[in-house]
Amino acid sequence: VKLNGIFPPLTTPFNQEGALALDRLKENINRYNETGVAGYVVIGSTGESVLLSRAEIEQVWTAARQAAASDKILIAGTGVDSTAETIARTNRAAELGYHVALVKTPYYYKGQMTADVHAEHYLRVADAARIPLLIYSVPQFTGVAVEAPLVAQMAKHHNIIGIKESSGVMQRVGEIIHRAPAGFQTLVGSATTFYPSMALGAVGGILAAADFLPELCVELYEACTSGDHPRARKLQEQLIERSRWSPNSASPA
Amino acid sequence: VKLNGIFPPLTTPFNQEGALALDRLKENINRYNETGVAGYVVIGSTGESVLLSRAEIEQVWTAARQAAASDKILIAGTGVDSTAETIARTNRAAELGYHVALVKTPYYYKGQMTADVHAEHYLRVADAARIPLLIYSVPQFTGVAVEAPLVAQMAKHHNIIGIKESSGVMQRVGEIIHRAPAGFQTLVGSATTFYPSMALGAVGGILAAADFLPELCVELYEACTSGDHPRARKLQEQLIERSRWSPNSASPA
Amino acid sequence: VKLNGIFPPLTTPFNQEGALALDRLKENINRYNETGVAGYVVIGSTGESVLLSRAEIEQVWTAARQAAASDKILIAGTGVDSTAETIARTNRAAELGYHVALVKTPYYYKGQMTADVHAEHYLRVADAARIPLLIYSVPQFTGVAVEAPLVAQMAKHHNIIGIKESSGVMQRVGEIIHRAPAGFQTLVGSATTFYPSMALGAVGGILAAADFLPELCVELYEACTSGDHPRARKLQEQLIERSRWSPNSASPA
Amino acid sequence: VKLNGIFPPLTTPFNQEGALALDRLKENINRYNETGVAGYVVIGSTGESVLLSRAEIEQVWTAARQAAASDKILIAGTGVDSTAETIARTNRAAELGYHVALVKTPYYYKGQMTADVHAEHYLRVADAARIPLLIYSVPQFTGVAVEAPLVAQMAKHHNIIGIKESSGVMQRVGEIIHRAPAGFQTLVGSATTFYPSMALGAVGGILAAADFLPELCVELYEACTSGDHPRARKLQEQLIERSRWSPNSASPA
Repeated sequence: VKLNGIFPPLTTPFNQEGALALDRLKENINRYNETGVAGYVVIGSTGESVLLSRAEIEQVWTAARQAAASDKILIAGTGVDSTAETIARTNRAAELGYHVALVKTPYYYKGQMTADVHAEHYLRVADAARIPLLIYSVPQFTGVAVEAPLVAQMAKHHNIIGIKESSGVMQRVGEIIHRAPAGFQTLVGSATTFYPSMALGAVGGILAAADFLPELCVELYEACTSGDHPRARKLQEQLIERSRWSPNSASPA
Repeated sequence: VKLNGIFPPLTTPFNQEGALALDRLKENINRYNETGVAGYVVIGSTGESVLLSRAEIEQVWTAARQAAASDKILIAGTGVDSTAETIARTNRAAELGYHVALVKTPYYYKGQMTADVHAEHYLRVADAARIPLLIYSVPQFTGVAVEAPLVAQMAKHHNIIGIKESSGVMQRVGEIIHRAPAGFQTLVGSATTFYPSMALGAVGGILAAADFLPELCVELYEACTSGDHPRARKLQEQLIERSRWSPNSASPA
Repeated sequence: VKLNGIFPPLTTPFNQEGALALDRLKENINRYNETGVAGYVVIGSTGESVLLSRAEIEQVWTAARQAAASDKILIAGTGVDSTAETIARTNRAAELGYHVALVKTPYYYKGQMTADVHAEHYLRVADAARIPLLIYSVPQFTGVAVEAPLVAQMAKHHNIIGIKESSGVMQRVGEIIHRAPAGFQTLVGSATTFYPSMALGAVGGILAAADFLPELCVELYEACTSGDHPRARKLQEQLIERSRWSPNSASPA
Repeated sequence: VKLNGIFPPLTTPFNQEGALALDRLKENINRYNETGVAGYVVIGSTGESVLLSRAEIEQVWTAARQAAASDKILIAGTGVDSTAETIARTNRAAELGYHVALVKTPYYYKGQMTADVHAEHYLRVADAARIPLLIYSVPQFTGVAVEAPLVAQMAKHHNIIGIKESSGVMQRVGEIIHRAPAGFQTLVGSATTFYPSMALGAVGGILAAADFLPELCVELYEACTSGDHPRARKLQEQLIERSRWSPNSASPA
């Protein structure tokens, strides 16, 4: 599966009683269908994955599947701390028609989350999954990051096709791209560093900014891939201006 | 509910296929029943709460309820990121006969977990819960800590009766005890600082060390409460010796 | 040198032009001379060591030496990143009549500050110093902490007689005391955890709170050493109340 | 002063007795004089600034001044915690013929190093300095970072002409460039993210990698400024390969 392009990680709308508002989810998707986005991430961090029950998650996956235009790639967020549950969710998403699973690092028992433990988790999921996987590293939420050597090791598995790198630490992004084999796909999660990431060899982005600025993100993507660097820099500045980054406790010192 | 004493946070045994081994759980409890522990925490971090399905959790709660001697206090770990799910789990534990719920801070969206957000979560759960709550602050796993001002505020709710403070940061423990009203019960989660915490006014401990050294922990508790400080210090040294603390990434610099 | 008791780390007074106000320093010392403090730390972190020139530091040392009552122990802060300069400062303080040197960990090149590097620094200083040393671990300023194994190793040198442990992490304090040989003296730097530290075996404190509350700190010290635990706990609460601890970026999560 | 280009931050050679080896310093500079580097940073972090006495620092500055070719820009590292001492060093460097001063953030009293305190330090130094200043933000050593709003404020002072940004956090670099006025010069300190930084608008780099790979760094700089992006990316990969980045405790999670 080719993951070049911009993927909005869909938000999950609720009604005033706190129940899912699937009609509004579909409305959002209908609007995104008209843009140049490459596909959707459904039940990612931006979709409040950790706040939804398993039943709600399946409802969201089903609704998004129905609303998405047929040319859009569908990525399901399926990663939880439990390896068994991650496999179950991944294969349920596959049944529902999703093309790729986005598998977050396990993270609760941080002290024990060595590279070896992460490797075992990912390899077990990859072996059992009926769709290919993206590694998902998001240390601002999990407190653990995936480094380049682990990515290079995972990339050898035919069913692990890429990574969503959300730390935004450019050294890490650069080294991941450098050490992974050709064909391994690095998507980034930070809109404010999208152009420099593309300059280093990222293939696309899963950008929360694409939820509210899909056209600008797509234009920036196109400037990057067409080699129009002056335009890319100008659009990147617009994106920085409109989605100002705030350092917080989860940010690097 | 009086929570003075030592509470082992029960481990969850699995068989070789990865299924729950409830018979071994009951055997463990039968052995602890013979000791002076005050009760049990069932489905805490040590019980691998985040790796179990909701159905498995209920099986563990039920089995532990059956095995526990009638004089033991039962504390159920019920906290998850979702407020609604935390309430549901808390009231299910109440139905199953649990006396107290241990409610972990929400934590995934760290940047947004201000004291106000935590307060709203705890007050909603406390309003809806049919059993009293312990706040559970465990920054080594969650990356967020509860500070004394929030505890002092929460302690006003009749249904929030104490805190399990697992950061082990003694300044924080001291200030929580100092600022909370009389009757609010502070339990600590660190065996290696149990005696100094008791010296400052903690009422007991939920100690992983009590899983493998229940008698030593109970003896230390009794030395503390009887005012036998030389003996307390000696037993504390034994506990330090046998459960050596390792600084890690989640520890203070 | 016996270091039991309370040591205020003296502040360095300046006049309105930013020059040293040595007369005011002496006035402060004259007042402290009337209290039960065991001695003084001169040119510690509280004395703004890093902001003073070498010439100013010697002036402060000389003035404090003159003003200090003859029964007070004098501890000079002499540690800087350079081993050679630390030795030079330590022996200059010895010439001026100081009894002990407080030697901060080197810290600027954090990534390289392994336990081995710290050990080499301390052993070289200890070999060359004409007065005994206290290790000084203050991670809230330096970003590096000294752990118990290194302390146990350093404690074998006859000229390294103790540690000022300012992280306040009670697990670390407990393990340092537990692993160091008898006679090694642990002083703590945190007023709000002074009583629990004494309960674990600390011999005294270098407490900034002793600059403005010397009598209260001395009373607390005496309650601890006389075994009057109820009074110690009460005085500790007063100290917590009057010197409220604020978690900040340098604090443990 | 135009700071476009590559500046090696010179190492300080010592002989076997630990004394300065100024002849070897000059030999190094003679070799760099033959390359396309734009100038030198003398007494930066790479030059072991914090380990040298004031007298040694002046010897190094003098020797480097003598050896540097007349077309090279000379930047002196002059920042220490003390504002007065920073001014004195800066003006001494000016007397010795240095063109620009690199002024590290004060950092020891981390909790008090608010943006306002940093602003006051920089404005006082800028007012008193006889040469223009570069702000120097290097949180991996200091534990404190300079954020874009402070940079934007400082950039209004005519004597603060740029920043050396060594955190390598691309969001921060992007926002600094975006918010600073035109003409403010951003140099970066991380070789492995040099090309993406240039793509965002940095004017050059102070790169430790330029100490051992000066030609490669200069080639990369030239590929960036000539708009040859494919070549820039290729050279950047070579630089990543040859100066592998290791995440450590000072790195972002």
